[in-house]
Amino acid sequence: MNVFIVHAHPEPRSMNGAMTRTAVEELGARGHQVKVSDLHAMGFNPVMGAGDFDGFADGDFLKYQMEQERACTEDKLSADIAAEIEKCQWADLLILQFPISWFSVPGILKGWIDRVFVRGTFYGAGRTFERGGMQGKRAMLSLTTGGLPPMFSETGRFGGLYPLMFHLNYGSLRFVGYDVLDPFVVYGPARIGQDAREAYLDQWRTRLASVEDEAPIPYPLWDQFDENFQWLPGHEHALHTLRSPVASNSVMESAT
Amino acid sequence: MNVFIVHAHPEPRSMNGAMTRTAVEELGARGHQVKVSDLHAMGFNPVMGAGDFDGFADGDFLKYQMEQERACTEDKLSADIAAEIEKCQWADLLILQFPISWFSVPGILKGWIDRVFVRGTFYGAGRTFERGGMQGKRAMLSLTTGGLPPMFSETGRFGGLYPLMFHLNYGSLRFVGYDVLDPFVVYGPARIGQDAREAYLDQWRTRLASVEDEAPIPYPLWDQFDENFQWLPGHEHALHTLRSPVASNSVMESAT
Repeated sequence: MNVFIVHAHPEPRSMNGAMTRTAVEELGARGHQVKVSDLHAMGFNPVMGAGDFDGFADGDFLKYQMEQERACTEDKLSADIAAEIEKCQWADLLILQFPISWFSVPGILKGWIDRVFVRGTFYGAGRTFERGGMQGKRAMLSLTTGGLPPMFSETGRFGGLYPLMFHLNYGSLRFVGYDVLDPFVVYGPARIGQDAREAYLDQWRTRLASVEDEAPIPYPLWDQFDENFQWLPGHEHALHTLRSPVASNSVMESAT
Repeated sequence: MNVFIVHAHPEPRSMNGAMTRTAVEELGARGHQVKVSDLHAMGFNPVMGAGDFDGFADGDFLKYQMEQERACTEDKLSADIAAEIEKCQWADLLILQFPISWFSVPGILKGWIDRVFVRGTFYGAGRTFERGGMQGKRAMLSLTTGGLPPMFSETGRFGGLYPLMFHLNYGSLRFVGYDVLDPFVVYGPARIGQDAREAYLDQWRTRLASVEDEAPIPYPLWDQFDENFQWLPGHEHALHTLRSPVASNSVMESAT
């Protein structure tokens, strides 16, 4: 299996750093190929702009998604974007490794998604969700939080981790076709001791050992919707899969 | 009223550009003071990093939120961050103007939140939600989508716009104390004609005319939770306010 880890933490000695190193070791030991994009170390540019393309289709009026589509066809994407796309196409599994920041990915990783998940290669008219460009591949979030589990429980102050991750799991990864695995979550690494952090790293190794065989989140399919993108009768229950808690590595099972 | 618009679109001739210009005109005509941070034009840096602070508290180990807190107290934040914080403190109303990108804000705006909503001034231990640093101020999202309304309805493919905006409205703006107003949404400006776009700009003027008097989204309050951040008995219904559709400018009322 080919694995691509996109790593978004500025401090190598952080828990995120340890998680990426652990993944590289564990996956390598199991005979998998691993590539890492360490966004801070690379100085990755997370800002969408005119420089992402060689010329404009529409005069000098920047219509970003239109230009993405044209640039895919005509091979006119900037080199930094093309290199990341190549790694996505190479990989069977994409792992986004990051500290939750404002209940989402940090800006540098958000900008990576903005610039790399190009209209054309990743999705296009009708080619979304299970018909998306990354169909047949797997993806997962691996993240750390600032807060401890109770805040993130379904009955807690933040209303559940899963609804918070909805825009990433469903709106980004699944949207372009990935089979999305449950997130791996380390709660409050800054608030726990070294032993608890090591226990999390052991959990991470165990998780990675079987990641090829895991069942993805059972998101709805296009044939459950009508031509106006509305749920067909009898499939409304599928809405639950958009909002329900994660199945494994959930708040209750965490090591803290 | 002082209004601070954070504008995140690279193309001035876009609908987002028109919306910000409309807001500046309309609010100015009504005697309000307006400041705009045009993030692309400013070349705003959206990447959290060591350069955001003058020196580290903890040797050379970057613990970002800890450094934010210290830098607030000791006045050691980088000048670009300090300038944005000053505008937030000056403003009675914050407007984030952006095109939805992967069901969130673009990377440049995400990074603005990451770097500007500093631990210390904006929030801290116990000072979150209605106790946050921006309490008494208002904030709202003003955004454009790529897709048309049916996709964003509660019974549609994306499961509703409100759950998608949850990490911004509740997890970011409300978290630091803002009274959050319903988002203003322009659906698919690239797919509609100039008349429909003008109609949206008229709606935007009308909305801004009464924005001072609008009731904010009735999010839950700290006295509805126990010391373990769990909902107190009798308040579980408040969870609905986290997930329900927006009250005004909703999909069904849109101009398209």
